[in-house]
Amino acid sequence: MSLLDNIHSPADVKALPAEALDQLCRDIREELIGAVSKYGGHLASNLGAVELTVALHRVYDTGRDRLVFDVGHQCYTHKLLTGRQDFTDFRDLGGMAGFPRPDESVHDAFVAGHASDSVSVALGMARARTALGADYDVVALIGDGALNGGMALEGLSDAGKSGEPLVVVLNDNGMSINESVGGLAEMLARMRTRVEYIRFKKWYRRAIMPRVPRLNRLLTGAKRWLKERLIPDNIFGDFGFEYIGPIDGHDIAKVEKALRWAKEYRAPVLVHVITQKGRGYPPAETAPEAYHGVGAFDVASGVLRYTGEDFSSVFGRTLTELAGEDEHVVAITAAMMEGTGLIGFQEAYPDRFFDVGIAEEHACAMAAGMAAQGLKPVFAVYSTFLQRSYDMLIHDVALMGLHVVFAVDRAGIVGRDGVTHQGSFDVAYLSSVPGMKIYAPSSFDELRSMLRKAVLEDTGPVAVRYPRGGEGGYRGDSSDKTAESVYFHGDDVTIVSYGAEFNEAMMAARMLRGGGVDPEVIKLNVLSPLDAEPVLASVRRTGALLVAEEACAAGSVGEKLLAAAEQAGIALRASRLVNLGDGLLPHGEPWKLREMKGLDNGSLARTVLEMLHGEDKA
Amino acid sequence: MSLLDNIHSPADVKALPAEALDQLCRDIREELIGAVSKYGGHLASNLGAVELTVALHRVYDTGRDRLVFDVGHQCYTHKLLTGRQDFTDFRDLGGMAGFPRPDESVHDAFVAGHASDSVSVALGMARARTALGADYDVVALIGDGALNGGMALEGLSDAGKSGEPLVVVLNDNGMSINESVGGLAEMLARMRTRVEYIRFKKWYRRAIMPRVPRLNRLLTGAKRWLKERLIPDNIFGDFGFEYIGPIDGHDIAKVEKALRWAKEYRAPVLVHVITQKGRGYPPAETAPEAYHGVGAFDVASGVLRYTGEDFSSVFGRTLTELAGEDEHVVAITAAMMEGTGLIGFQEAYPDRFFDVGIAEEHACAMAAGMAAQGLKPVFAVYSTFLQRSYDMLIHDVALMGLHVVFAVDRAGIVGRDGVTHQGSFDVAYLSSVPGMKIYAPSSFDELRSMLRKAVLEDTGPVAVRYPRGGEGGYRGDSSDKTAESVYFHGDDVTIVSYGAEFNEAMMAARMLRGGGVDPEVIKLNVLSPLDAEPVLASVRRTGALLVAEEACAAGSVGEKLLAAAEQAGIALRASRLVNLGDGLLPHGEPWKLREMKGLDNGSLARTVLEMLHGEDKA
Repeated sequence: MSLLDNIHSPADVKALPAEALDQLCRDIREELIGAVSKYGGHLASNLGAVELTVALHRVYDTGRDRLVFDVGHQCYTHKLLTGRQDFTDFRDLGGMAGFPRPDESVHDAFVAGHASDSVSVALGMARARTALGADYDVVALIGDGALNGGMALEGLSDAGKSGEPLVVVLNDNGMSINESVGGLAEMLARMRTRVEYIRFKKWYRRAIMPRVPRLNRLLTGAKRWLKERLIPDNIFGDFGFEYIGPIDGHDIAKVEKALRWAKEYRAPVLVHVITQKGRGYPPAETAPEAYHGVGAFDVASGVLRYTGEDFSSVFGRTLTELAGEDEHVVAITAAMMEGTGLIGFQEAYPDRFFDVGIAEEHACAMAAGMAAQGLKPVFAVYSTFLQRSYDMLIHDVALMGLHVVFAVDRAGIVGRDGVTHQGSFDVAYLSSVPGMKIYAPSSFDELRSMLRKAVLEDTGPVAVRYPRGGEGGYRGDSSDKTAESVYFHGDDVTIVSYGAEFNEAMMAARMLRGGGVDPEVIKLNVLSPLDAEPVLASVRRTGALLVAEEACAAGSVGEKLLAAAEQAGIALRASRLVNLGDGLLPHGEPWKLREMKGLDNGSLARTVLEMLHGEDKA
Repeated sequence: MSLLDNIHSPADVKALPAEALDQLCRDIREELIGAVSKYGGHLASNLGAVELTVALHRVYDTGRDRLVFDVGHQCYTHKLLTGRQDFTDFRDLGGMAGFPRPDESVHDAFVAGHASDSVSVALGMARARTALGADYDVVALIGDGALNGGMALEGLSDAGKSGEPLVVVLNDNGMSINESVGGLAEMLARMRTRVEYIRFKKWYRRAIMPRVPRLNRLLTGAKRWLKERLIPDNIFGDFGFEYIGPIDGHDIAKVEKALRWAKEYRAPVLVHVITQKGRGYPPAETAPEAYHGVGAFDVASGVLRYTGEDFSSVFGRTLTELAGEDEHVVAITAAMMEGTGLIGFQEAYPDRFFDVGIAEEHACAMAAGMAAQGLKPVFAVYSTFLQRSYDMLIHDVALMGLHVVFAVDRAGIVGRDGVTHQGSFDVAYLSSVPGMKIYAPSSFDELRSMLRKAVLEDTGPVAVRYPRGGEGGYRGDSSDKTAESVYFHGDDVTIVSYGAEFNEAMMAARMLRGGGVDPEVIKLNVLSPLDAEPVLASVRRTGALLVAEEACAAGSVGEKLLAAAEQAGIALRASRLVNLGDGLLPHGEPWKLREMKGLDNGSLARTVLEMLHGEDKA
């Protein structure tokens, strides 16, 4: 029997005797490994945070106190301890999410998915607490990777100065410490402090400060003098935080003790906890990167299910080829070397590969500096994370028309990672960047051709946006045209699509033809600047337009095509924009999300039939 | 005679004897004060950076070396020394820009206008230099305010670890050091180091390292031990930078010496220079904030030209009123308390006012945390700087539908600050944020009413976007409707506009009516969600639509209205979208930029006549 069976809420964790906690952690690990091996998800980071999470729940009451996760993929233990032990359909539509979701539980204080925001959010909460006279505690839980993000440092600077009681727990699993990541990580690796100083400071604050208020000012200088001699300054001290650590994150008693100190200290405190990623599952301990985000795997052998070629791997190989042809080509990633398929590039051209850590703003501005001085930088980044660089896209890249290439991975529906990770917005925000050219390959061959054009032929800012996963039925390469009618020429309706969604449009067209409708299908290769002419020529004949795209409605290609048709004086009998609506999509298998939004081939065909035969026009 | 008369290029600065430099600086100050008093611009920061800029030009060759300004409003002396002494039409159309412009001079290495990007850009340039085997130097010049921005810290972390020879000059004028700004600023204020250590380190690197390579590894531990004992660590050391400073920034000889050291050191070096904002002009020394960005003023008295009420001041007063009515209301600014009109709020409610420094990402995420816990945060921010928060708008605010109010100042044409500051993109990017409501007041009264609704009545994310400067002829308040036909009901053409531009539309309509054309003018109050019905009802009658707006074309309201008309099956005889095109507008008086884009009333009237009588349709 698992101890988890008796854990229905954090109160049950608090009620456990200390001697039972090791067993609880073992049971949690077993549950985690079982669930992730079956449904996929984030494994190594969760295995590393088991004891830390248990300790947090023994010290804090997450139903009332606010525990703010950063990125949040390490929240599985937290979910297990807060009444969520049912992994059925985990990370799929209707199942439990893989990230914290306030709409899932009162114990999830805030949404998480993008990195480095937790200190800012926690400070906002702490300030709200103080302003409203409430008395809960606020804790931010941030990893060493996310700490590299500029927003985290902005948050630490403001929080440290604020004096607001709040605790930042730095879960340092050393994953950010490698050759390619920055000085901050090196600093963490060196950091040590002395426990006596903390004891003195705590005594001083509690025993002396309240009793001798007027002595306070006089003592400030002495305090600083003492501090400077007793502990080497570190960045957290510079920011105004009280620093506690480093602490063994797998020793629950020690972590609990540090957290209780921090909680009682009533000031900004940073608790530095050292953990081991993958802890307790030898295959993940040995290769934590491989078990960061995984699909299903075999528990006994640790063998990860084979994953075939996908757009990311094709991108990586193609870019490596291009780098062989042109020595000006360099690759940039923001802590996503594996995800963006750049391992091979890094091995082949280590001096031309730059992993800047979680720092998309810096990555974009640095790429602009490189381009200004003659390099051809390619920044490989997920669609959802490039949102971070929106200002730099405009200010640092576009204003000077610099030739920076953006390899926009995970564009469109992403799937199981859910609402924080969907690539819903890049078509809208990239289209608004002055002079940005946007390619949308539908097949591996098109990705190869378009990336080659983008890197070697184009000038100015260029984006190549491609989906997560593998290619569909379409394997062609029409990259020599901005838009072309593929396969189907028809007179009844014009169906426009691009990227992975083009496969659905093609299948829908085949179904329609079988049903006696004669559709014309147009595939767009370049979304901006948008060449509307082929579409306008087609709808002049068909009088009906359906645009299917994996992009949010506002700023969509469909919106632009309708506007172009109106400006051209074309009155359509019927038109439909099928897209991701407001861009918010839950977690779930991509095909289910596609259905949900009417973007699967069956729905598209039905929509066309409604358009042509139904009574409604809009 | 001014020494500047003989300075035609930086070579002339280098050729000057050291004894002449004080005179040169006096002459530069006189020129700066004269020019800014006449044309307006940034004064205090430029007066503080005179000696520093002269020293930079004596050490570096900006025609070849790359000097990257941060924000860049302190570049006037640099312009004077690089062949640009003609201030005629300064900051106006066709005149010299107030910020660095690579298209203006080879001595301007990179565009500048937004803060905190210089280290990233410089690192990109340094890496390009190394990759391509070139041998120029790269220098980033950053102020202490911009250093607070997260991207600067991301850049320092990556640069420090990179080992790339590059120099970051921190121009510390202490402006970021005040009660409301973060821990980083406090740290700067404390920072000291010992010059002996630098001497040792330099000797060690040059004398020992190359000769005894195998000894190196053994010495690393000793070196670190020595370093830790000789100088207190500071954040720059943590990041991997060699730190030199602090240095008196008004002593050219000392600054020159430090820069030469740094240049020869061939590693990442930070030179910390202390300067006085407003130096040499007593009114600006006394009140540097007042002379940060100024209009014309009287040199003798220092009296700043009176500036009347504007949207910013109306916003500030209204928000202060609202805070009096509802204790949940708090105000946030990112180092723009004066610009956004929040001085009065800060005085009335210091505990409910949060200046986070230059940190728009943090400001937005912190606001989300506040809203999650029951406050009603209002983030007052310029349209162009809110671009920085795009990801947080989506991820931290919109996903949970949090009620954060964005007071988007300087929306639309901004004017003399130029291309880096125009508010061209907010309509596009805010429209793509899920659930974001966007108000567009045209008058002070409308700003008051809409802000009240946004803060006290609405739920979820809300933006109120308003222009720079004062109100126009329209003084009404139609905020109870999302869109309404004001003044003119006509049958010939529908003119749609919003915000300040509505005044031009109204004047154009009056001109047209005088000329026998009967226009209908519709003013939009809410841009998103967009209620197209009033416009559609109108164009069904008129058959012609002109949309005039201060927003970039992609993602514009005009695009959405045309798409809506097409979906409603309305065939327009003629339609025109008059807007800011790709969003890139040079510096110049707003009325000139308005004319340039065809947004002035005369151009609008002419465009309507062309639409109705001309042969072309598009």
